[in-house]
Amino acid sequence: MSNICITAFKWVPPVAQGLVRDLRVRWALEEAGLPYTEKLLSFGENHQPAHRAVQPFGQVPVYEEDGLTLFETGSILMHIGQRSDVLLPKDSAMRARAITWMFAALNSVEPHVQNLTTIDLFFANEEWAKARRPAAEKNALQRLDAVAASLANRDYLEGIFTAGDLLMISVLRNLRHTSIVKDHPVLASYVARGEARPAFQRALAAQMAQFARNEPKAA
Amino acid sequence: MSNICITAFKWVPPVAQGLVRDLRVRWALEEAGLPYTEKLLSFGENHQPAHRAVQPFGQVPVYEEDGLTLFETGSILMHIGQRSDVLLPKDSAMRARAITWMFAALNSVEPHVQNLTTIDLFFANEEWAKARRPAAEKNALQRLDAVAASLANRDYLEGIFTAGDLLMISVLRNLRHTSIVKDHPVLASYVARGEARPAFQRALAAQMAQFARNEPKAA
Repeated sequence: MSNICITAFKWVPPVAQGLVRDLRVRWALEEAGLPYTEKLLSFGENHQPAHRAVQPFGQVPVYEEDGLTLFETGSILMHIGQRSDVLLPKDSAMRARAITWMFAALNSVEPHVQNLTTIDLFFANEEWAKARRPAAEKNALQRLDAVAASLANRDYLEGIFTAGDLLMISVLRNLRHTSIVKDHPVLASYVARGEARPAFQRALAAQMAQFARNEPKAA
Repeated sequence: MSNICITAFKWVPPVAQGLVRDLRVRWALEEAGLPYTEKLLSFGENHQPAHRAVQPFGQVPVYEEDGLTLFETGSILMHIGQRSDVLLPKDSAMRARAITWMFAALNSVEPHVQNLTTIDLFFANEEWAKARRPAAEKNALQRLDAVAASLANRDYLEGIFTAGDLLMISVLRNLRHTSIVKDHPVLASYVARGEARPAFQRALAAQMAQFARNEPKAA
């Protein structure tokens, strides 16, 4: 019996389906072989006091287990990783390097990817966004080139798959509305390698199944 | 004898002095009572292959210890935290919560703070920046209000000081060029509480001492 429960959205628009951050946690739980239940929120519920009390920023996912409540996908992965050598290797130096890539994905790469996706998905027609986009894309590309250089000829950032790859690949997937990753052979095959993992496939299917089940009826 | 060496800049302009990220690592090492040595880079050296080999994004700090090389301040703090109950409490639930705030600081708060500081410090006179600034400030304020609400009436996010506070306070300090934190009594006293810690004071003095020593001569 698993007592792990993750909070996710009942439904999101297609542009966000397969990208919402509970996917990262579902993927980690699948890699670790840990079953979980789901608590699903409608839009708006995530800003209600009951949810804000466990997730101060009104986001998903939340992770609950036997009285412990965590938010932030990075932190949840650190927690799950303690029970999974796949996510966080037992060797202390390898583990420290895996954790380094987790933070690199979330603090050195994702902010630049997010600036670009914010422009493209929410403000594409605004003058400030048109003026800013070339530099925003250049900043993101510089970080992506550094990731590609770090991969060198290896399958994953430290050779074997870790939670660092899980997060880095998840961040790169957020560029799927552009050709940036597709046009970058090293990164394209890196993302494809992650997406081909059975654990990823199960996690994606689980997120998409809820969206299909809770698709709003046409008015 | 300590074998810990951190890489930092010889000198940075006043606008960045007291904010460069090696300060976060110096602070953590001071909280943990671990001595360290310094390796100092000139501008430009950080983009040379020798540095890129250990810090793929060409940034500081790098942390080196007995053959282990780490980058990303969050990751370095996780590593140092294993030797310091002050940074990462021994109790597993408290530790998981402290780690949650580390990721919250770096992935949910810092990107919004950074968008605002990028506009203010590098692009203040550009039209796109003027058009974008109000929304960028609003986004940052929403995250800051959530942090203040999480503090409630406590001194620190989980009651006692942890590495989560070290990073959150460091992120908030990046707004020193604005009155945003000063005008927010809960956050202003939170930052002041962190800055009053003797470990912070020693870390700041150590960073500033190098900048004073390496101040460029007037041409």
